[in-house]
Amino acid sequence: MAEEKEEFSIRKDEEKNLNLLLRQLFPITRSLMGEGNRQTLDIIKDFLPLEIVEYPSGTKVFDWVIPDEWKIKDAFIANQEGHRIVDFRANNLHVVGYSAPIDATLSFDELRPHLNVLPDMENGIPYRTSYYKRDWGFCVTPAQYKTLSEIDDVFTVKIDSSFNPNGSMTVAEIFVPGKSREEYFVSTYFCHPSMANDNLSGLLLTAFLARDMLRHRQPEKSWRFIFVPETIGALAYLRHNQDVMEHTVGGLVATTCGGPGPLGYKETFLGDHHIDRAIDLAFRDRGIKPIRYRFVPDGSDERQYSSPGFRFPVASITKDKYYEYPEYHTSLDNLDFVNGAQITESLEIYRDVVGILDSNILPISVVQHGEPQLGRRGLYPSTGGAINQPSAKVPVEDEAPDIDAMSWVCFMADGSHDLISIAERSELHFSRILNATRLLDKAGVVQVGED
Amino acid sequence: MAEEKEEFSIRKDEEKNLNLLLRQLFPITRSLMGEGNRQTLDIIKDFLPLEIVEYPSGTKVFDWVIPDEWKIKDAFIANQEGHRIVDFRANNLHVVGYSAPIDATLSFDELRPHLNVLPDMENGIPYRTSYYKRDWGFCVTPAQYKTLSEIDDVFTVKIDSSFNPNGSMTVAEIFVPGKSREEYFVSTYFCHPSMANDNLSGLLLTAFLARDMLRHRQPEKSWRFIFVPETIGALAYLRHNQDVMEHTVGGLVATTCGGPGPLGYKETFLGDHHIDRAIDLAFRDRGIKPIRYRFVPDGSDERQYSSPGFRFPVASITKDKYYEYPEYHTSLDNLDFVNGAQITESLEIYRDVVGILDSNILPISVVQHGEPQLGRRGLYPSTGGAINQPSAKVPVEDEAPDIDAMSWVCFMADGSHDLISIAERSELHFSRILNATRLLDKAGVVQVGED
Amino acid sequence: MAEEKEEFSIRKDEEKNLNLLLRQLFPITRSLMGEGNRQTLDIIKDFLPLEIVEYPSGTKVFDWVIPDEWKIKDAFIANQEGHRIVDFRANNLHVVGYSAPIDATLSFDELRPHLNVLPDMENGIPYRTSYYKRDWGFCVTPAQYKTLSEIDDVFTVKIDSSFNPNGSMTVAEIFVPGKSREEYFVSTYFCHPSMANDNLSGLLLTAFLARDMLRHRQPEKSWRFIFVPETIGALAYLRHNQDVMEHTVGGLVATTCGGPGPLGYKETFLGDHHIDRAIDLAFRDRGIKPIRYRFVPDGSDERQYSSPGFRFPVASITKDKYYEYPEYHTSLDNLDFVNGAQITESLEIYRDVVGILDSNILPISVVQHGEPQLGRRGLYPSTGGAINQPSAKVPVEDEAPDIDAMSWVCFMADGSHDLISIAERSELHFSRILNATRLLDKAGVVQVGED
Repeated sequence: MAEEKEEFSIRKDEEKNLNLLLRQLFPITRSLMGEGNRQTLDIIKDFLPLEIVEYPSGTKVFDWVIPDEWKIKDAFIANQEGHRIVDFRANNLHVVGYSAPIDATLSFDELRPHLNVLPDMENGIPYRTSYYKRDWGFCVTPAQYKTLSEIDDVFTVKIDSSFNPNGSMTVAEIFVPGKSREEYFVSTYFCHPSMANDNLSGLLLTAFLARDMLRHRQPEKSWRFIFVPETIGALAYLRHNQDVMEHTVGGLVATTCGGPGPLGYKETFLGDHHIDRAIDLAFRDRGIKPIRYRFVPDGSDERQYSSPGFRFPVASITKDKYYEYPEYHTSLDNLDFVNGAQITESLEIYRDVVGILDSNILPISVVQHGEPQLGRRGLYPSTGGAINQPSAKVPVEDEAPDIDAMSWVCFMADGSHDLISIAERSELHFSRILNATRLLDKAGVVQVGED
Repeated sequence: MAEEKEEFSIRKDEEKNLNLLLRQLFPITRSLMGEGNRQTLDIIKDFLPLEIVEYPSGTKVFDWVIPDEWKIKDAFIANQEGHRIVDFRANNLHVVGYSAPIDATLSFDELRPHLNVLPDMENGIPYRTSYYKRDWGFCVTPAQYKTLSEIDDVFTVKIDSSFNPNGSMTVAEIFVPGKSREEYFVSTYFCHPSMANDNLSGLLLTAFLARDMLRHRQPEKSWRFIFVPETIGALAYLRHNQDVMEHTVGGLVATTCGGPGPLGYKETFLGDHHIDRAIDLAFRDRGIKPIRYRFVPDGSDERQYSSPGFRFPVASITKDKYYEYPEYHTSLDNLDFVNGAQITESLEIYRDVVGILDSNILPISVVQHGEPQLGRRGLYPSTGGAINQPSAKVPVEDEAPDIDAMSWVCFMADGSHDLISIAERSELHFSRILNATRLLDKAGVVQVGED
Repeated sequence: MAEEKEEFSIRKDEEKNLNLLLRQLFPITRSLMGEGNRQTLDIIKDFLPLEIVEYPSGTKVFDWVIPDEWKIKDAFIANQEGHRIVDFRANNLHVVGYSAPIDATLSFDELRPHLNVLPDMENGIPYRTSYYKRDWGFCVTPAQYKTLSEIDDVFTVKIDSSFNPNGSMTVAEIFVPGKSREEYFVSTYFCHPSMANDNLSGLLLTAFLARDMLRHRQPEKSWRFIFVPETIGALAYLRHNQDVMEHTVGGLVATTCGGPGPLGYKETFLGDHHIDRAIDLAFRDRGIKPIRYRFVPDGSDERQYSSPGFRFPVASITKDKYYEYPEYHTSLDNLDFVNGAQITESLEIYRDVVGILDSNILPISVVQHGEPQLGRRGLYPSTGGAINQPSAKVPVEDEAPDIDAMSWVCFMADGSHDLISIAERSELHFSRILNATRLLDKAGVVQVGED
C-alpha cells in the first residue's frame, strides 16, 4: 500500500510538472529555426542536460539545404483607423511561418490570396508555413475573415520579419551509452509554435523519457534522444550522425501523445519489427487495445529515418494522432485540449516499450539437453503430481518461483529467441519473463547472449 | 466528354467486330489437326500477322507423339428409308472427334456403345473426342437417342473420315520483342469445333490482345501470343521453343471468357505469384470481385506450361469458366450463349493485366537518404501545414501532383519493390502509381532499374 | 461385407485384450524405479519382445542423477485401537511416491503437514511423489482427512519403505529398422501407480503400435518405441541413445489416450511440422475435429525430447488429455474411467498417423516436361471431353483409375513435395494419394526419391 501511494504521488508530481512546463512553453514562437527554438530548449535544459548543436544556414543535407534563419517581431492587419483586426501578438499562428516582410496598404482583393482560413473551424486559426518559397501570409478565424471581407476599404498590412543567411538551425540530443552497442532512439520535433498536442506533448514526453534513462544506473542498450525541427532537422541530424549510428536498430518518434482521445500507434514500415512487437506487448500487458495505424509514408520524421538509405524501423505511440483530431494544426490544439495527466498516460506506455526494448536479451540455457533440474536449485516444488491439476487448490506462496515463466525461458533459451519472442509465445507478461530470466541467471541456469 | 464518347464508340466497334468473327468462325470443324484449324487461322490472319508453323505427324513431343491428321467429309446415322436421324452436316459435334471411318448396317444394340448422350441436357449434343485410341462414335441429343432406340430396325451408319500419317499439326504465334528480355505469354487453343465459349472466346480475345500489342510502339517486356491445339499443341510448342523461352516469367491461358456469367480467374499454381497479384490489382482497380478458382492440375494448358520441367506460373481469367456452366462441352455453348460484348468485358481485364505486367518496373530513387525535396521541383505544395488536415477544404487543382502516390513511390524506390508491390501496399490504383513513377522519372528523382 | 465383419471382429478382440491387460496392470505399484515397473514390463513382454535395459542408481544423465531405487512393503495410519484409517494395501496412491520410512506415534497436528488431500474431490485420493527430496507423506480422501482430524488422540504412522543405492531404473524399447534411415519414435511412460488413463492407456497403446509394426513386413522408415519412467527415464534414454538417434526426425508421446472424452492433440513445439500435419490429415480423413492443444513447455516427455539440445518435434494424441479432466492424478482415474474401446479409438488415429509418416515418400515423375500420357498406359479414359463435365453422369467403374489423385501426384512430383503436401494441397484422402503414387510407380511414371 505504501508503495502504491508513493507511485501515485510520483505520478501526480509528474503531471503537475508537465502542466507547469506546458504553460511555460506554449506561448513561445517556435519555427524551423530561430530564437523561439532556443528559448524552448533552454527551458528543457533546466531539468535535462541537453547537448545543443547549431547547423548553419546554407548547409546541404542530402537533397535539402538548411534555409536562412527567420526572425519576426510583429505582424498585423489593421483597418484605416489603426485597429488591428488580425494581430500576431494575440496568437503567433496568425502569421504564416517564415513569412517574408511586408508593409503595404492593400484592398481585400489584394489581401485575399494571402489569407488562410478553415471555414468550418469556428474560432480556429489554421497553422501554415512557407519554409522553402519566399512568400507571406496570414491565418485567420472564419469570423476575422468575415470582418475583413465586409470592410469596404484598404488595410494596413505589416509583417516585421527578417531572414538571416548567417543564422543556424538548433538541434539537441542526449546520448546514453549502454552495456551493449545495440542502439535505439526516441526523436521528437519542436518547430511548431503555439500548439500543444502537436507537439509540446511529444517534446515533453521525450525529455521525461531521457531524464528517466539518465537516472537509470546504466541501460543495457544505448539510447539516443533527438530534439529537432521536423523534416529538415531530422535530415540534418542524420546527415551529421550517420557514421555514429551504425549500430542503431530503430526508434520511436514522439508526437501528438497528449490529447484526450484514445491511445494508438503508427506501426513501423515493417509492421512486424520487434519494435512493433514490443509496443504490442506493452499494450497487451496493460490490457489496452490501441488503435493501430498502418504505416504510410506521410506523417512525421519516420519519413526520414525510414527512407531507403536508412530504413530504421520507427513507430509512434500517440494519443490523438496527428491528422485524426479536428483541432489538428489549428489554434484549438491548445492547453484546453492537452494536459499533463494525458501526456502521463502515453509516457507510461513509452516507458514500458523502452523498458522492453532495453531489456530484450537473448537467454541461453546452460542445460541444453533436457530440462534443468530446477528442484535442486530450490526453484521447483519438491512434491510432484500437483502441477496443473485442475482440482488442486495449492496456496501459492507470494515468493513462489514462477514455474510457468521459468519453463518457457528454459525451453526457448537456445540462443535464438529473445525475451520479446518468449513473452509473445508464452502469452505471459513481459515482466514475468524478465524476472524469471533474472532468477535463472542468478541460479546459473541461463546465461545472457551477446546479440 | 468527347474522349468518353470516342472510347465508347471504339468499344462498340470492337464488340461488332467480335460478333462478326464469332459468326465466321463458329461453323468450322476444328479438331486436334486438320483443314478446319487452318481455315480458322486464315480468318485471324486477316487482321493479325500470325506466324504459322506445322509440326509433322509422328513427331515426338516429350511423353507424347503427334498423331495422324484427321479428315472428315460426312457422317450420319440413317434409317432404312435413308432418312438421316443424326447428321454431321447439321452439327459437327455429332461425330466423336478423330472418329475412324465406318460404313455399316447396325442394330441399335450394336450402335449403342458408340453413342454419347447427356440424358439431362435437352437439345444438347455432347462434345467427345478419341484422339489417341482409334475408335468411332456419335454424339446425340436425348431426343435423337430416344428416336434411335425406338426404331426396331437396323441403321445405316457411316463416317467418311480418313487419317493422314503425313499430315501435320498447325500452330501459330506472334512474338513482340520488348525493351527488356523479361517475357510473358498469352496462350489459347483452337481445337474445339462448333463451341463458342470453349473456345472461340479465348481465341478471339488472344488475337485482339496481340493486335493491341503490335499497335503499341514497343512494350517494356517481350510478349508471346500462342495459338495451339490444347494439350498436344502446347506440348509441341514448348518442345520447339523451350530454348528461346529461357527468359519467360509466366503467362495467361485465355479460355472460356465470353459467357454471360460472372468474371473469375483460376490462380497460378503458386497462388501468390505477381501474375496473380497483377490480376488482383486489375480487378481491385475496377471494383470487381472475381470468383477465385483455386489451382488444380486439371483444366487447360497450364497443365503443360506449369508442369515440373517448366513451372511457368499461368492463370486464366474467365467469364463462365469451363466445368462451371451447364452448357460446357455441348452444342448449347453457342452464339446464343456468347457474344462480343461479353468477350469485351473479359478483354478489358486482360488488357489491364497485360498493362500491369508490362509496365511493372522497379523504380530506384536518386535520393536514397531522406525524402527528395519535391517542392523545389514543383511537385509539392509550397504552403506547409495543410497536408491531411481533416478540416482543410483545399480546392485540388486538376493537374495537382499526386503527392500520395509520389510519396509511396519515393519511399519504396529502393530497388527491391516493383510497381505491383507499391500499388498493393499503398492501396492506390496501379495507374496512379505508374503515373507518379513516370512524373518522378521525368523530374530526375527516380530511375527505372533493370530487373 | 465379409471384410467389414472381419475388421469389426479384430477390433472387438483388440478391445477385449486391452481390457484384460488393463485389469492385470492396474493394481501394480509402479514408481520411478522398482519391482512394480519390472512386473509391468514382464506383462507387456508376453506379447511384445521388449529389449529391457537397467540404468544404475547414481548415473548422471545431463543435469540430473538417477536416484536410489525405492521399495515399499506396507504403509498405514492407524488409530490407537490398531484400526488402519489409511491403508497402502487398499490403494497404493495413499503413500507419496518415494516416501522415506517412518514408524512413529504422531498427533494430528504433527501428521497434518504430511497429508495431501483434494478437498473438492469426493472419494478421490490425490497422486503425489517426492522423488528428489527425502520426505514422507500420505494421500487421503476428504472423508479420511475428516476422520483423522476428528480423532483427539495420537496415531500410529508407519511407512515400511527402503532405498537401494545399488538399484537401477528399468527402461524398455523396440527398434524396428526400416528401408530408410529416417527415424521416428513413439514414447510412453509407465511410472505411475494405479491410474488408468495416466498412463496405462499410453503404455498399452504404444505396445500395440509396436506389435503392429513388428508384424508389418518392413516399414519404410525406422521406428523406435520407447518405454520409460517420465522425465528422468526419457532423459536417461536420450543420454544413452543420442548417438544412434542422429537420423531421428521426431515422434509422438503416448499419454492419457483412453478416457471417455473427446479426441485431441497437443501440437509439436513447431506447430506446423509434418508430424502435426500428418495428425491433421489423419483426423481430417476420418472426419474428426480434434481439440488442438497449443504447445506449452509443461506436459510430458516432449519437455525432454524437444529441449534445445534435441529439438525433436513431438506431439501427443489424447483422449481426455492430462490436466483437462477432473479425475486427473487421482484414484478416480481408474477402470471405470478407461476401457479398451476408448483406447482403440485413439489407437486408430495413432495407426493412421504412423502410417502416414511411414509412407510419406517423395515421388519424382519420370516425365518432368508436360503431363505424362496416362492414356497409353491405360490410366486415363480414351474418350475425351467428359472430364468434369457437370451434366455427365459417367458410371464410374470400381477399378477406374483415380485421375484426380494421379494428376495431383504427377503435377507435384518434382522431388520437392512429399505425399503429405500433396494430400494437403489436393484435399484428397491421404490413402488416395498413396494409392495413386503406387499405381504410377508400378506404371513406371513416378519414382520414389530418397529423402
